[in-house]
Amino acid sequence: MSWYGKEGPCPDVVLSSRVRLARNVEGLPMGNRLSRERAEELISDTADALGNEFDKTDFSHLDRITAASYAEEHIVSTEFASADNARALYKNEADDTYIMVCEEDHFRIQSITAGYSLPEAYAHARAAEASLAAKFKLAFDDELGYLTHCPTNLGTAMRASVMMFLPALTRTNGISAIARQLSKLGMTVRGMYGEGSEAAACLYQISNQVTLGVTEEETISKLTQLADIIIAEERKRRDELAKNSPDELSDLVARSYGALTHSRVMSCREFMEHWVNVRLGVALPSLDTGIPKDITFSVLDTSLIESQPSVLMLYSGGNELEPHERDCRRASRLRERLSEKA
Amino acid sequence: MSWYGKEGPCPDVVLSSRVRLARNVEGLPMGNRLSRERAEELISDTADALGNEFDKTDFSHLDRITAASYAEEHIVSTEFASADNARALYKNEADDTYIMVCEEDHFRIQSITAGYSLPEAYAHARAAEASLAAKFKLAFDDELGYLTHCPTNLGTAMRASVMMFLPALTRTNGISAIARQLSKLGMTVRGMYGEGSEAAACLYQISNQVTLGVTEEETISKLTQLADIIIAEERKRRDELAKNSPDELSDLVARSYGALTHSRVMSCREFMEHWVNVRLGVALPSLDTGIPKDITFSVLDTSLIESQPSVLMLYSGGNELEPHERDCRRASRLRERLSEKA
Repeated sequence: MSWYGKEGPCPDVVLSSRVRLARNVEGLPMGNRLSRERAEELISDTADALGNEFDKTDFSHLDRITAASYAEEHIVSTEFASADNARALYKNEADDTYIMVCEEDHFRIQSITAGYSLPEAYAHARAAEASLAAKFKLAFDDELGYLTHCPTNLGTAMRASVMMFLPALTRTNGISAIARQLSKLGMTVRGMYGEGSEAAACLYQISNQVTLGVTEEETISKLTQLADIIIAEERKRRDELAKNSPDELSDLVARSYGALTHSRVMSCREFMEHWVNVRLGVALPSLDTGIPKDITFSVLDTSLIESQPSVLMLYSGGNELEPHERDCRRASRLRERLSEKA
Repeated sequence: MSWYGKEGPCPDVVLSSRVRLARNVEGLPMGNRLSRERAEELISDTADALGNEFDKTDFSHLDRITAASYAEEHIVSTEFASADNARALYKNEADDTYIMVCEEDHFRIQSITAGYSLPEAYAHARAAEASLAAKFKLAFDDELGYLTHCPTNLGTAMRASVMMFLPALTRTNGISAIARQLSKLGMTVRGMYGEGSEAAACLYQISNQVTLGVTEEETISKLTQLADIIIAEERKRRDELAKNSPDELSDLVARSYGALTHSRVMSCREFMEHWVNVRLGVALPSLDTGIPKDITFSVLDTSLIESQPSVLMLYSGGNELEPHERDCRRASRLRERLSEKA
């Protein structure tokens, strides 16, 4: 089961924590200077390094829908999903650790954990790195740290992030102030599902920007301090919203739940809007919304992933579907997943 | 139980049939020329004429909300509900026959039946008239027929009507053609709940306009012929709508059902829109709407009456409520009445 099927700490605000480590093999050409033969050799050697805990998925011969569905699950980058070079994904689904081989760097190790649990994600990523380091000599410079294809990743070559659900901060125009603050501290915020500062799904990835001149532990510690503040502020603003206009907020949430569980045709964009309202409603149990108790954060987060176009098509048999047909399947899947009678 | 709690013939198109007879007592002044004393005497004598089957409600001393709720149930006219003269309503709830005493005419006998059942309504109204005629000498002229306060009612002094639900004709702009046809034949169409030719609730009262030079039986027969044609046309257009765009129509219906059963705040106007969609959905069982089987036409028609402002306030304790509070109570009543879990 993937991260979105589990429930971690602070699920009301944090969907997932993730740590990504970029690593390269010393002496091996990077990026498109790596020949297909040597790439395939690297992929094969990686299997030996990782052993049985990891399953390989060969992206060079993967159909478009399956590849794109991995990107929609945030397991691979969209670039990796749609590239045409020799590349593979190694998955350890037991602890949600994934290694892209021959993305921009030779290795992109990524570990995802449910909820607010950066140290756990970091530990998983380091364990996978250790397996690779036992087999490969990783490119490392005493001055610069880990060497990477893109110079912005030099140093720790680590990106730690938390995916946060911030509907109250979004509604009360609090995101841009947070973005400014984070920027001063070497951190950044990125809207997920709809680019720009206001994300349609009110989902934001908060991550470190700086990788040079800091340690991994310092980065995670600083990110945690900032995330703590954002979590507290979001919760405070939610409580204010619920206190100031309980009828309106209950109505909004309950109607969105009604739309998700009754519609027969639903676009991805409309889904997002209702999803935000319902997730906020579940986070505020004082509201009278009528949402059944078994609609948990993990059920909702699963529905978010399942409603993405490629995951949806994969679930519906793996064939390309016209947008209208997709919107019908999305509505039908949502009813199965979310309705009282499920 | 009132007409709206029962299910009569053709409930998919006809909510109710009604026959109203205007009658006056010979020699007694009409309208506001009738003194309070003589009006009270008439009200009292009416009780003797009708016997035990009728209960009296004294409108002269009725609170505003209760009086208005009778008008919202279509049992009395809005003029009767809000007048300030001595007046009373006699109700025989067993067969939904009502007599307004001292409305515009001395007696306004009205019988309402569920569904498409004009002859039954006519029989009930005639039975009530017979009770009055046994006690009072009713004003009748061999040339003109029954004498009435307003000359447009002279003759049969009868208005027979069917309240029709015509969403498909409304959507396909078929109402004005019907109105023109009816007008040529001495009949008329009036939009209920929202004046004008397009009624918000897609409810239309089809009734005779002509009372002079025709018999009651001819009027009912002609109205029935025309109603038969309208019923057939409405059903045909519904089937076409369902056939041409089943997904869109199912989606519209199912979402409206979701809104009615999930909202926490709902205006009367918004209610009407959803009510129309859901009633249309129940009439088209081929649609995949997820509406439970126990949501019948009579349940929906009951919710229509219960959602009117005064009926709602009466149900909520009989106190005047602010519009917002009313909208909250409406939503709550709808959930009790319509939701799967009820």
